[in-house]
Amino acid sequence: MNFAEKLKNVIREKGSYVCVGLDTDVKRIPEAVKGGISERIAAFNRAIIETTADYTCAYKCNMAFYEAAGKQGYEALHESLGFFPEDALLIIDAKRGDIGNSSAQYARSVFEILGAGAVTVNPYMGYDSIEPFMEYEDKGIFVLCLTSNAGSADFQKLNLADGGPMYMEVARKITEWNTRGNMGMVVGATHPEELMSIREIAPDIPILIPGIGAQKGDLEKTVRAGIGKNRAPALINSSRGIIYASSGEDFAEAAGRKCRELRDGINAVINFK
Amino acid sequence: MNFAEKLKNVIREKGSYVCVGLDTDVKRIPEAVKGGISERIAAFNRAIIETTADYTCAYKCNMAFYEAAGKQGYEALHESLGFFPEDALLIIDAKRGDIGNSSAQYARSVFEILGAGAVTVNPYMGYDSIEPFMEYEDKGIFVLCLTSNAGSADFQKLNLADGGPMYMEVARKITEWNTRGNMGMVVGATHPEELMSIREIAPDIPILIPGIGAQKGDLEKTVRAGIGKNRAPALINSSRGIIYASSGEDFAEAAGRKCRELRDGINAVINFK
Repeated sequence: MNFAEKLKNVIREKGSYVCVGLDTDVKRIPEAVKGGISERIAAFNRAIIETTADYTCAYKCNMAFYEAAGKQGYEALHESLGFFPEDALLIIDAKRGDIGNSSAQYARSVFEILGAGAVTVNPYMGYDSIEPFMEYEDKGIFVLCLTSNAGSADFQKLNLADGGPMYMEVARKITEWNTRGNMGMVVGATHPEELMSIREIAPDIPILIPGIGAQKGDLEKTVRAGIGKNRAPALINSSRGIIYASSGEDFAEAAGRKCRELRDGINAVINFK
Repeated sequence: MNFAEKLKNVIREKGSYVCVGLDTDVKRIPEAVKGGISERIAAFNRAIIETTADYTCAYKCNMAFYEAAGKQGYEALHESLGFFPEDALLIIDAKRGDIGNSSAQYARSVFEILGAGAVTVNPYMGYDSIEPFMEYEDKGIFVLCLTSNAGSADFQKLNLADGGPMYMEVARKITEWNTRGNMGMVVGATHPEELMSIREIAPDIPILIPGIGAQKGDLEKTVRAGIGKNRAPALINSSRGIIYASSGEDFAEAAGRKCRELRDGINAVINFK
């Protein structure tokens, strides 16, 4: 079973398209969580995972937040690896990419050391910067295509001489490179019209969609553009909107509620479950 | 004094344009270096730093190799931070880039936790993914422009509808964004002709040039295209060509010799020192 099929199964089994982003910023962990830096990050993650596990099919850890806490962040990430439910996909949101020799090292780090089921990578350096990740056939490789931020206009949206914007060429290349069925792409929820066009040229590529919640992407438009029959599955990610739903002692319950609401909101749009 | 001026000074003081890339792969550390994984990486780095310090003005640590060794790699990187000479620039080669909120965390990791003097970043996500790094006014931000690998043809070299390849638009944007004098760019030694064109439109931007040595870039052409009067300085990086010069007990001395040869080779081309 290739990655796209595995992802479809986990979404069906969990009845959810939601991915919870554990962008755990030490400064935003509620005071109710006590201990040293490493303990607080791990305890916060554990509490959020426990209350959201029933409503999500995937978790995404953004490496930036763990690296920003130094050695203790790295410790906390490793400890958190033990808390994820076995039936959920773990995505390491690392946006890595380097010459082949170095990308092979990043792939080893993400898939062998951290044991992730999927990773995000940056396409700027081209095929040989992504290929070492692709060699892990059962893992998912989500390549940045059109990102949710304003800066996506600077290069991704520039029109090429051969016609069409750069991000469409990235989408085409991802499709071409998908010989193992393990390629995915990242398209921000802030671009629902573009998401629709991307879906047309790459119907078989799973899409990770961040930008709902704090980044103000439109949920209904995004779901209609991203999720549909005869298409590879899409994951809708929310990070800050779920994990910082409350800064009080009820933070974990509040996160669970927000996660269930997002699951139900998505499922209502497409009459799923 | 801004970053470009500081870099010019360190090159003049050290009499060298060389950057030594510490892409320390556990599997390639000579048997003569004993101990656990963390100790071996740190001891290898220390030995290489000692024998190359007189001939180089900068060191570049590629994060991929430290991450691939897991917690022990991270420990070894931290320990290595104590070995760099104070007068050399430390570049963390991380090729990071994310939405602003996350890039701010990466910038914190590289500049505050690791204490680097410069970083490499990926431009694909645009201005707001790079701006959080730029806020550190005395640090250098080397943005990937045209990389040394074959994959640079996939997206970087595509022609835009407005004329010229993508990498030239990246170079133009870097120049436009350089209001604090702390922007740099990465251009691979495998493209000496393109390096010349980039130099013309961005004469004030320091350039980090990898791809000499194992990647077979032409040294003389690269030096003539990259280094010159009335231009911001260029750093010429060699990683594998220096640090793995010998796998025997003389590995550190061999690295020192290779580093001195590279320094002298560059200086001979431009009659420097």
